Amino acid sequence: MTLGFAILGAGRIGQAHARAISATPGAAFVALAEPFQQAADDMAARYGCELRTIDEIATSDDVQAVAICTPTDTHADLIEKFARAGKAIFCEKPVDLSAERVKQALATVEQTGAKLMVGFNRRFDPDFMSVKAAIDNGTIGDVEMVVITSRDPGPPPASYIKVSGGIFRDMTIHDFDMARWLLGEEPVTVMAQGSVLVDPEIGELGDFDSVNVILKTASGKQCVITNSRRATYGYDQRIEVHGSEGMAAAANRHESTVEVAGTGGYGRPPLLNFFMDRYAAAYANEIAAFVAAVNEGTSLPTTGEDGLKALQLADAALESAQSGKAVSLV
Amino acid sequence: MTLGFAILGAGRIGQAHARAISATPGAAFVALAEPFQQAADDMAARYGCELRTIDEIATSDDVQAVAICTPTDTHADLIEKFARAGKAIFCEKPVDLSAERVKQALATVEQTGAKLMVGFNRRFDPDFMSVKAAIDNGTIGDVEMVVITSRDPGPPPASYIKVSGGIFRDMTIHDFDMARWLLGEEPVTVMAQGSVLVDPEIGELGDFDSVNVILKTASGKQCVITNSRRATYGYDQRIEVHGSEGMAAAANRHESTVEVAGTGGYGRPPLLNFFMDRYAAAYANEIAAFVAAVNEGTSLPTTGEDGLKALQLADAALESAQSGKAVSLV
Amino acid sequence: MTLGFAILGAGRIGQAHARAISATPGAAFVALAEPFQQAADDMAARYGCELRTIDEIATSDDVQAVAICTPTDTHADLIEKFARAGKAIFCEKPVDLSAERVKQALATVEQTGAKLMVGFNRRFDPDFMSVKAAIDNGTIGDVEMVVITSRDPGPPPASYIKVSGGIFRDMTIHDFDMARWLLGEEPVTVMAQGSVLVDPEIGELGDFDSVNVILKTASGKQCVITNSRRATYGYDQRIEVHGSEGMAAAANRHESTVEVAGTGGYGRPPLLNFFMDRYAAAYANEIAAFVAAVNEGTSLPTTGEDGLKALQLADAALESAQSGKAVSLV
Amino acid sequence: MTLGFAILGAGRIGQAHARAISATPGAAFVALAEPFQQAADDMAARYGCELRTIDEIATSDDVQAVAICTPTDTHADLIEKFARAGKAIFCEKPVDLSAERVKQALATVEQTGAKLMVGFNRRFDPDFMSVKAAIDNGTIGDVEMVVITSRDPGPPPASYIKVSGGIFRDMTIHDFDMARWLLGEEPVTVMAQGSVLVDPEIGELGDFDSVNVILKTASGKQCVITNSRRATYGYDQRIEVHGSEGMAAAANRHESTVEVAGTGGYGRPPLLNFFMDRYAAAYANEIAAFVAAVNEGTSLPTTGEDGLKALQLADAALESAQSGKAVSLV
Repeated sequence: MTLGFAILGAGRIGQAHARAISATPGAAFVALAEPFQQAADDMAARYGCELRTIDEIATSDDVQAVAICTPTDTHADLIEKFARAGKAIFCEKPVDLSAERVKQALATVEQTGAKLMVGFNRRFDPDFMSVKAAIDNGTIGDVEMVVITSRDPGPPPASYIKVSGGIFRDMTIHDFDMARWLLGEEPVTVMAQGSVLVDPEIGELGDFDSVNVILKTASGKQCVITNSRRATYGYDQRIEVHGSEGMAAAANRHESTVEVAGTGGYGRPPLLNFFMDRYAAAYANEIAAFVAAVNEGTSLPTTGEDGLKALQLADAALESAQSGKAVSLV
Repeated sequence: MTLGFAILGAGRIGQAHARAISATPGAAFVALAEPFQQAADDMAARYGCELRTIDEIATSDDVQAVAICTPTDTHADLIEKFARAGKAIFCEKPVDLSAERVKQALATVEQTGAKLMVGFNRRFDPDFMSVKAAIDNGTIGDVEMVVITSRDPGPPPASYIKVSGGIFRDMTIHDFDMARWLLGEEPVTVMAQGSVLVDPEIGELGDFDSVNVILKTASGKQCVITNSRRATYGYDQRIEVHGSEGMAAAANRHESTVEVAGTGGYGRPPLLNFFMDRYAAAYANEIAAFVAAVNEGTSLPTTGEDGLKALQLADAALESAQSGKAVSLV
Repeated sequence: MTLGFAILGAGRIGQAHARAISATPGAAFVALAEPFQQAADDMAARYGCELRTIDEIATSDDVQAVAICTPTDTHADLIEKFARAGKAIFCEKPVDLSAERVKQALATVEQTGAKLMVGFNRRFDPDFMSVKAAIDNGTIGDVEMVVITSRDPGPPPASYIKVSGGIFRDMTIHDFDMARWLLGEEPVTVMAQGSVLVDPEIGELGDFDSVNVILKTASGKQCVITNSRRATYGYDQRIEVHGSEGMAAAANRHESTVEVAGTGGYGRPPLLNFFMDRYAAAYANEIAAFVAAVNEGTSLPTTGEDGLKALQLADAALESAQSGKAVSLV
Repeated sequence: MTLGFAILGAGRIGQAHARAISATPGAAFVALAEPFQQAADDMAARYGCELRTIDEIATSDDVQAVAICTPTDTHADLIEKFARAGKAIFCEKPVDLSAERVKQALATVEQTGAKLMVGFNRRFDPDFMSVKAAIDNGTIGDVEMVVITSRDPGPPPASYIKVSGGIFRDMTIHDFDMARWLLGEEPVTVMAQGSVLVDPEIGELGDFDSVNVILKTASGKQCVITNSRRATYGYDQRIEVHGSEGMAAAANRHESTVEVAGTGGYGRPPLLNFFMDRYAAAYANEIAAFVAAVNEGTSLPTTGEDGLKALQLADAALESAQSGKAVSLV
């Protein structure tokens, strides 16, 4: 069976998914909805997909799945629309910046019995999957502490900060999902601290650019998340999991393995700088996992519930950073 | 000039300082006070020092400096005694488990004009000194975040936990000092979270064995400290400092540089497991620094004030872990 | 302009080039010649290429370039045939196992003015390109010594050994090309030593499975090559270049960046085990370079002359290993 | 029992052994013979040893062992003298630059039944000992290839080159000993290639500054040695041993574990630059091993025979580099 795909949105992330869908056996990139004509034409020329409106896609018989790659504030509406249209849905995170709105959308998903996967791509990164395997196969014993480092090469523009929902909902949300996945138990307490150290304009917009978070589960497992909007040496993405029997750590990916030595010492190149390069395999793997699950009728690896839980952790972190108090989630 | 030293206490740390004093030009190990006869005799045989009582040492003309390596609850009394006796004092951390008692002792030090150095050995570790140099010479720009990982190979016995003052005052206190040293600015807010994951007996004694701490300074710089009483792979001691221009990170020290590869992959040996092996150079360097400062009349690199500040951070961390609130230090 | 490609041979390497051609802008995979029907049909189904005979391809107007991926003993004939047919030629190494036969074929190439690139894929590996860049931009000064480590995960079957031309012509030939490329000067003396340590059957076939080679240029630059048909820990591919100002070294690629630590120490996964995984980027890059050079009319990065020189070094190494004497190439 | 030591020669290596003897339980540094008064006085002041002539030492009842740290051309005479005097002898390598002279001296040692250890310090380096352990405990199976990298930070002065016996007898001799130790079988064939790339004056003196050597044993095991008188990034000392089951590799020691990252990438400090820093533990360990063997009456870990064999390999390498032929040692 071949899963006919429509992509909604031809931006950066839409292009990533177009590449992934084209390379995935069992999937076909059938249609695209994109309001900017040039971007739409370019993608159609490259992939041979048809250009259709969102309404046309909802009623297209040759489309069984949609990849929602539009701005965040349209996600919930589109999820509801395509759930009712009977399409399998892959939606970029976050579902919405409001937990209430997410719950509404998920209710529709549940009522319609639609399949919904939320794009937490990092769960599909080969390095992080290898860390998860070290947990699941018992190599490191019972998980005690997770340490997640996530630092962007540089801050996004102010225009993006304004609509992003803030660093916790935009950036840390990935780490909250990783924390839940790796802890294997829901966090019940969130402590967070935020600062503006990188760009004063971010502070003027009411957001932070440097944050640290401590999560704690009911049994006492903890997770520390360190985020910054600045890392001059590239896109810093590391995870450590400490268990009762040992530790598993995923290191960064550099531009090459080459080290050059001279009188000043040894030098290695910076890290892969762009999230799409760093997570190229993860983007391919997550689409393949979606296609396999839909085609085989198995459960999806990341769900709307995962999207909701990560958002609730983000909301709690923001509250903690503002109030100076631990926030309880139970 | 040769600085005549008396060591008070022939335990593990007293032995480390005996080695360091003997190897330091400009210093001589003159006398030892130690109530256990066998330990006293062994050290006298090895180093040729004389055995004297504490009172005798206080009035010995050939002793210009003392190294206080006795149990914590004697530190403050001994500092006061030897400050009045006009001796230069090197005292192991902590000065006392009570900040009030520390303040009293420091008042005596100030009144007598005595020289007091508190043994925060990690400031003298060559790797950490190299990280500090990367800050001081501007290589990484303005400090934004410090990340300190400190994990013991295994928990101490319950008998020690009972008198230790708890993990924050016993173990994290080293990291609080490192945080102050590397941030270059006093932390004003402390958030901490504690768990019992390693040894239930530690929990029964009212202590934690796994903690995470977030410190924040007035300008917004942050420090994350991760501590555990368990690390199956050795004594895990790492520091990262992130600045506006880059990052400096000190890695762990393994038992050897050898890597063995086979069908199962590549293997490296565990970390140096014992703090005295890991910090052997630091112990030597700190005594050398004390001797140089006393002999040359320059200021001491770590002071009683440093001991007090680290203890106050520990008290605040404990309060935060218990109350679930950020604790302000101003 | 789009370069119409025919692939001759649908084996492992033919498939690698099919992937590369399909992914290269400016190239199209038009036709395939492959005698095994199943293999031919599979590739046609996957890529939509037409199935044609070699003679048909030679006269196809929609084919401007051929990729010769057939057994070694057909390479020279096919080069001559397609040179006369006016096609641009990409040929897998070696051109032939006989230097005389290579010279004949190259003479035809020269007479016809055909474009011929020999597939020394390692020159297009991103890590090795980065080493080369460190030479070319002067970072490490004048090259003095090159050290090449190349160890296969395991020996090939005896049936392959019989037709391979021996380890120097089959395996070391890649390293001879790398040596020439990195030394920047032709080797004039070859010393080699061979042993049978991995598989006695290889010795019975008159070949070695473990060899070391020292090359020396007229100005005294040296290159050491270490080869083995065994590496239990994966496909071991490393290069070091030492110059008057410093050193550049390309390290291996592991299956992941994950390190797992426990009481036994730290463990990393084996190396990428399969040459097509290890050199996936190199295969893509070399086809892209061929397409770009043909389409733009620029000179090809690796030529038939490169193929001949590497073969002559292999012949000299074999002679040296058998005679116990340094063999001169001038 | 305490082994009374006399050191002959207060130069750089004599000082290293003075430190080692002083720190070794069961040994005492009793006497020094050194013609330069200032050097002699300095060492006497530091260690409390007596100053005696060589003849006095030979008849001193409180001296049971001598450490010969004088110029190479005096080694054989001194070995003979102190063998006859009944002293245990620790002699720096080489015993002599002439294999014939070495054989004479060893004959005297045998006749007198004297104990003689030759100072191949690298066998006592903790990292290399760990590699050896991986062989001895079967972890990597049967040894197939040894790869030794040894590069000095910079060339010695011409005055030293003149009396050194040439790079093979002065520098590679250490690697020849390591090769024998790690191969576990005597090399029977030597191929070597030499160049002058670092300092033309070395060439004018008839020596090389850049050499590569291939050794081969009767069963076909091979060893590659790479030497250079130049390494801008520090003292480069690495060993790899490849066996039928795996590989063990000792990496270099850097000045610190600190890595600093910024827009230009990641930087690590150079290697320990001075052989006495790099091999500090090895120097201590070899004296301790000598003392233990003499005091306990067990066999010495490195013997005069080891010194002779390494020299014969050096002679063969020189002949091979000059003749362009493999040199047989059987």
